Amino acid sequence: MIYKKENSKKVKRLSRYRRAIVKMQELGYHRLTSVMLGEKVGVSASQIRKDFSNFDITGKKKGGYLVDDMLKKLQKILGKDRIYKLILAGVGNIGTALINYNGFIREGIEIMAGFDVDSSKHKKMKIPIYPIEKMPDYIRSHRIKTGIIAVPEIAAQEVCNTMVSAGIQGILNFAPVRLITDESIVVQYVNIQNKLENIFYFVENN
Amino acid sequence: MIYKKENSKKVKRLSRYRRAIVKMQELGYHRLTSVMLGEKVGVSASQIRKDFSNFDITGKKKGGYLVDDMLKKLQKILGKDRIYKLILAGVGNIGTALINYNGFIREGIEIMAGFDVDSSKHKKMKIPIYPIEKMPDYIRSHRIKTGIIAVPEIAAQEVCNTMVSAGIQGILNFAPVRLITDESIVVQYVNIQNKLENIFYFVENN
Repeated sequence: MIYKKENSKKVKRLSRYRRAIVKMQELGYHRLTSVMLGEKVGVSASQIRKDFSNFDITGKKKGGYLVDDMLKKLQKILGKDRIYKLILAGVGNIGTALINYNGFIREGIEIMAGFDVDSSKHKKMKIPIYPIEKMPDYIRSHRIKTGIIAVPEIAAQEVCNTMVSAGIQGILNFAPVRLITDESIVVQYVNIQNKLENIFYFVENN
Repeated sequence: MIYKKENSKKVKRLSRYRRAIVKMQELGYHRLTSVMLGEKVGVSASQIRKDFSNFDITGKKKGGYLVDDMLKKLQKILGKDRIYKLILAGVGNIGTALINYNGFIREGIEIMAGFDVDSSKHKKMKIPIYPIEKMPDYIRSHRIKTGIIAVPEIAAQEVCNTMVSAGIQGILNFAPVRLITDESIVVQYVNIQNKLENIFYFVENN
């Protein structure tokens, strides 16, 4: 499957629905209408009904959707009934924050190992940190498909190439640089600086 | 000015152009064509010409755009000739990573102070960390317009309300929750988990 922007948006919405439904389940809800869910996630009720219908999640016209049923189906679609293993290249400020973040485990996301040019620096981490040269072997032997790039900008493309050669198919990139890859590889970007600049622009012109 | 998604995209592109041009300037370029710039940032040459024309950046049909001229105009549009001051609520994993990140200063972005429920924990930080109760006074007395929210999800909306009451107009939110604000407030989201789930979905269905 080639990664398509339109599908990407749909999956993002499904992720948001799932997370909102989990919270509402914790609050004691057994049934939800598309209107209630829509208010929670900021999506129109008709969009939710369309998305659900696309993925074969059905409700009753008046009674709404059964929470258990929605979650089961969304979890299956989003693959939340399994653990996602990934690796991290770059154990600096952001890399360390990701390793220490406790919310991933709850979501079935597990950073298996970190790789850094200076692996000796990081002896007290929660996960093993290896020299960056060991990354390809690790990816292959553990059949890892997803990698996070949190190295400095100048090293990001090389790390990306190494990951892809070893079998990585999806990358979350924190380095402020566009990565060049085959179109079969999914790359998502987190560019904090861009988002801040965007805010500044609007705040200053307000 | 009300924040509009279409404008937001335009500003994001301008930010990317600017950063790419700075790099190419460092490599010795004096002139760039829209095609060269387009390849660097992954935007079509015609889109670049359209954006530049909208913002009154002009080039010659064959000679391309003058690097100095482009940068001067982009910096003025994006406000890069000044320092942007902001505050941070929540000095946990992500907050600490942001404080320690050295790239902001180069971009004229300065986190002035951090606020946390447990401010005593953070005595060795590069910036002062105050109890969260002091945040409104600080925002007012320093005329801060932009805030970063990096508190746990459950506290995010309250922190957002406090910021906005004190005069904050733009927020970068790392908590995995949609914030409810007046539409005159710009909110940008960094949701790492959503991005990872998106990648997993495509990698697993590949």
